[in-house]
Amino acid sequence: MTYCLGILLRSGLVLASDGRSNAGVDQITKVAKLNMVTHPDRAICIQSAGNLATSQAVVSELEEAAGRGDPATDLRLCHSMFEAARVVGERLRHVSDADAKYVEPYGDPTATFLVSGQIKGEGPRLFQVYAAGNFVEATARAPFLQIGETKYGKPILDRALAPETSLDEAAKLALLSFDATIRSNLSVGLPIDLLRYETDSFLADNLITIEEHNAYWRELREGYAAGLAALVTSLESPPPAAGRGGI
Amino acid sequence: MTYCLGILLRSGLVLASDGRSNAGVDQITKVAKLNMVTHPDRAICIQSAGNLATSQAVVSELEEAAGRGDPATDLRLCHSMFEAARVVGERLRHVSDADAKYVEPYGDPTATFLVSGQIKGEGPRLFQVYAAGNFVEATARAPFLQIGETKYGKPILDRALAPETSLDEAAKLALLSFDATIRSNLSVGLPIDLLRYETDSFLADNLITIEEHNAYWRELREGYAAGLAALVTSLESPPPAAGRGGI
Repeated sequence: MTYCLGILLRSGLVLASDGRSNAGVDQITKVAKLNMVTHPDRAICIQSAGNLATSQAVVSELEEAAGRGDPATDLRLCHSMFEAARVVGERLRHVSDADAKYVEPYGDPTATFLVSGQIKGEGPRLFQVYAAGNFVEATARAPFLQIGETKYGKPILDRALAPETSLDEAAKLALLSFDATIRSNLSVGLPIDLLRYETDSFLADNLITIEEHNAYWRELREGYAAGLAALVTSLESPPPAAGRGGI
Repeated sequence: MTYCLGILLRSGLVLASDGRSNAGVDQITKVAKLNMVTHPDRAICIQSAGNLATSQAVVSELEEAAGRGDPATDLRLCHSMFEAARVVGERLRHVSDADAKYVEPYGDPTATFLVSGQIKGEGPRLFQVYAAGNFVEATARAPFLQIGETKYGKPILDRALAPETSLDEAAKLALLSFDATIRSNLSVGLPIDLLRYETDSFLADNLITIEEHNAYWRELREGYAAGLAALVTSLESPPPAAGRGGI
């Protein structure tokens, strides 16, 4: 299982994915489940969950197509993030059409993606591409999207995230959302790749990878757990039953 | 969807279920998904999730059998909560054997239960009865069990609950676990039935029902949300990428 999170803010995007990191190549920096296509006028990120062969095929085909000039597959030619999401969805359909019937006897061939970033001429945007290749966009009302093991990490985001949250605050919330998931589900684990993208920077360089013994990660978890315990203690207890003494 | 939670503590049990309450009858107090069999030497609670016809049939058969003297079905004859869990599991198998094949064309016929309480001669115990009628017991290492929509409300319990937590503290955590679930999943809703059972009391009288406009519930949610926001703000932000300025 994977957990990927994308958060859309006024000040930019915060993206987090679990998965081991790989070496980067050329203009496409790779970390297992967080892939980026950057160019002076755009920064496009693709996070993936689901069948790894399917998601890797989609990402690899898009990597190979970048700069080749085919509007159906070249993410450098997209005029908007909406178009970029459509290109990813179409690639997913292409891979599924070719592979799914062979894979199904062995397991679920589907994959899902978060496609986010900014292309000059519009603000940052965030999309979730479903297994069917169609997609939805995050809005100010629903400023985050999740794929994979989404439930454990959702309440803290529902409670504390707003479009005006800063990148750094949202990055903390993203990590706490991962902490909730990792504590509750052994199949999601470190490292976590965390990208903070600043609106209009067109740079995806503020990417950190949090490994097992990262001191910041330990302090964050411990500080949060201790603060949470103190917070709960500070709240009033529920009143006793009115008819206490008999049912 | 339902959410039911059982917490086993040194000082007793905290049980919470969502669902509208019904009037109580005789020795069996009923609230939709939290049913109790009490007797001077025992307090046994059954919480249920899954197919309502199945779970109601199981509970009704056990209600009718209480005091009738048949050791296979009479919860008043059980010498231990382990026996009580087995009686519930056997009733579930009985109902499933009779009904499942007729129900399956229309939907999932399965149900699951939390069976908890105390019978004189042993401490409080808590069991989860699976759809197959087999069951597991909560231990100090895993002091809570959940059925239904379990994921959203799990992280706060994983973080803050310990066997030595007091009944009142655990009751707060239970409600916050429900709040997390209700915020994230529209299919779980108020009212919440909350029972605090004190070890060796053999009384299930501290049962409160939290309805939509309960003032305590509103204060708890608001106090927690505000405290959480302040806590997150007080924590350090993640460090920026070391190689900031180029990938």
